[in-house]
Amino acid sequence: MPPSRTSDSDLRIGVVGATGAVGRVTLQLLLDRGYTNIRTFASWRSAGGQLGNFEVEEATRVTLGSGDLDVCLFSIGTQWSRELVPAAAEAGAVCIDKSSAFRLEEDVPLVVPEVNGDRALGHTGIIANPNCCTIPLTMVLAPLHDAVGLRSVRVATYQSVSGAGSEAITDLRGESADDHLLRMDWEFDGIEFDEETKIRDETRKILELPELPVTATCVRVPTVVGHAEAIWIETVEQIAPEQAERILAQAPGLRLEKVPSHGHAIGIDEVIVGRVRGDHAVDNGLALFLISDNLRKGAALNAIQIAEILVDAALPNYSTER
Amino acid sequence: MPPSRTSDSDLRIGVVGATGAVGRVTLQLLLDRGYTNIRTFASWRSAGGQLGNFEVEEATRVTLGSGDLDVCLFSIGTQWSRELVPAAAEAGAVCIDKSSAFRLEEDVPLVVPEVNGDRALGHTGIIANPNCCTIPLTMVLAPLHDAVGLRSVRVATYQSVSGAGSEAITDLRGESADDHLLRMDWEFDGIEFDEETKIRDETRKILELPELPVTATCVRVPTVVGHAEAIWIETVEQIAPEQAERILAQAPGLRLEKVPSHGHAIGIDEVIVGRVRGDHAVDNGLALFLISDNLRKGAALNAIQIAEILVDAALPNYSTER
Repeated sequence: MPPSRTSDSDLRIGVVGATGAVGRVTLQLLLDRGYTNIRTFASWRSAGGQLGNFEVEEATRVTLGSGDLDVCLFSIGTQWSRELVPAAAEAGAVCIDKSSAFRLEEDVPLVVPEVNGDRALGHTGIIANPNCCTIPLTMVLAPLHDAVGLRSVRVATYQSVSGAGSEAITDLRGESADDHLLRMDWEFDGIEFDEETKIRDETRKILELPELPVTATCVRVPTVVGHAEAIWIETVEQIAPEQAERILAQAPGLRLEKVPSHGHAIGIDEVIVGRVRGDHAVDNGLALFLISDNLRKGAALNAIQIAEILVDAALPNYSTER
Repeated sequence: MPPSRTSDSDLRIGVVGATGAVGRVTLQLLLDRGYTNIRTFASWRSAGGQLGNFEVEEATRVTLGSGDLDVCLFSIGTQWSRELVPAAAEAGAVCIDKSSAFRLEEDVPLVVPEVNGDRALGHTGIIANPNCCTIPLTMVLAPLHDAVGLRSVRVATYQSVSGAGSEAITDLRGESADDHLLRMDWEFDGIEFDEETKIRDETRKILELPELPVTATCVRVPTVVGHAEAIWIETVEQIAPEQAERILAQAPGLRLEKVPSHGHAIGIDEVIVGRVRGDHAVDNGLALFLISDNLRKGAALNAIQIAEILVDAALPNYSTER
């Protein structure tokens, strides 16, 4: 269980895109963690409805720019983030954005709390949440890089449909095995391989290794939740699989399982990593496998953890100061 | 359409495991190709039934050892193959076995017709059909090795449930997206990563590169038909992606698509290969992606093509000679 945050209940939190797949998980995790001073926002199509006890407000530059929010967690499309995030940030909210809109901008920290959490403190109003595959990947890469240095990364992804939002989940639930949606897909949202570029560029930014070779092949598979990744790395110094396992077992946010199980990974906060073995194609090669709950650590949880870095740094005076 | 083989109709063919997922495709492909002198065999549980116009006989050492079959196509489990294949072979049938029972035995050719078809002619009664992932993989690797030499291979698989047989298909068709079977899995038939060792050892044997580093990560995904593979290779000489594409476009049995489509790959004979791009982790690196119909080229079709190598080499006197 996460620590109760009832003492932080004055923190005024906006959840934008609250009716979407990630937004709903965000709201639930906030409630689980004891936050109560929450407002929920969505597009005009969902506005006016209820999410539990919360009335869903329309997300506009006006409602989000009203200046009475401390933190805004955005999980809306990139285009909408570009439109709405700056308005909320200008009005004084720290905006944690899950879209790719600001991730590579120089003055926007791109944060995985376990990897580079201190970067969050250098924000200028906007903090970006990385891609759902980048987050668990960097959590596995960072401790290994610290120990023996990274020379290259290759990764093949197995991404669930919930990464494509609520509609894709509904579609999959309505399909039978004979139907088209039980097909694998590698053209996400009509944008070919954009996902692969994101994984490369974001991994480089988070690890602060701008030249690191990262080659990704991204595939959507017909499962509801859970993103898996088959990873090959080459390291600067040699490392035995057993030594790598010991490092990963102690790294924050990771759970080491000899054989990571899809079933175990759903609904938990940790990223499961395992299948650590030598890759004999190179002297210092290692193969690994990970699976994580893409709606939690891959999205909603990571954003909340970023907010809590700010809260922990600023409390007890955070909410009264503003 | 394949060439009509009506002139070879005297060839006496046994389809063993005819009621299984691969066996049914084998029978259909044989009929499509004009073969008519066919007997079908299955375990006692399915024996006595009908498959179209064919009465299903029980597969036993006696029925298969009766000496009146020229070619036997086996798609039964490894344990049953060990039991039944030798009996049929001793009785004079050339046995083409799709299990892993004999694949690595020294006097058993392991054949992908487009890659090492001539090896089939050196058989001593048994010819092995490679693993459903090895077949398309070697078809892509062989022409590139011929052109620039292979130094290493890494492959992540996306394998459909039909690779696990008819029951797995029925199970998947009965499940909804919330159910367990829409989970990814990497412990095939309870045997952990046996599949990965097979891909390595079989690729080395077929390409006749006993030292080639091949690291595979195998995953079963919840789709009915179609095995995909994300591949990274390092070559001895440098090769531009465009040059690799030209080589692959001309290679037998391959269809080059910029972005191989899962939908296109089902029900066709060719392996679709594409997404050819540089892998900048090494000087001579290339990343590729393939998808193939695992029941056809990955199993049934490959076995029939092996039989046809023998037929083409021995005809017109094949069936009368024996």
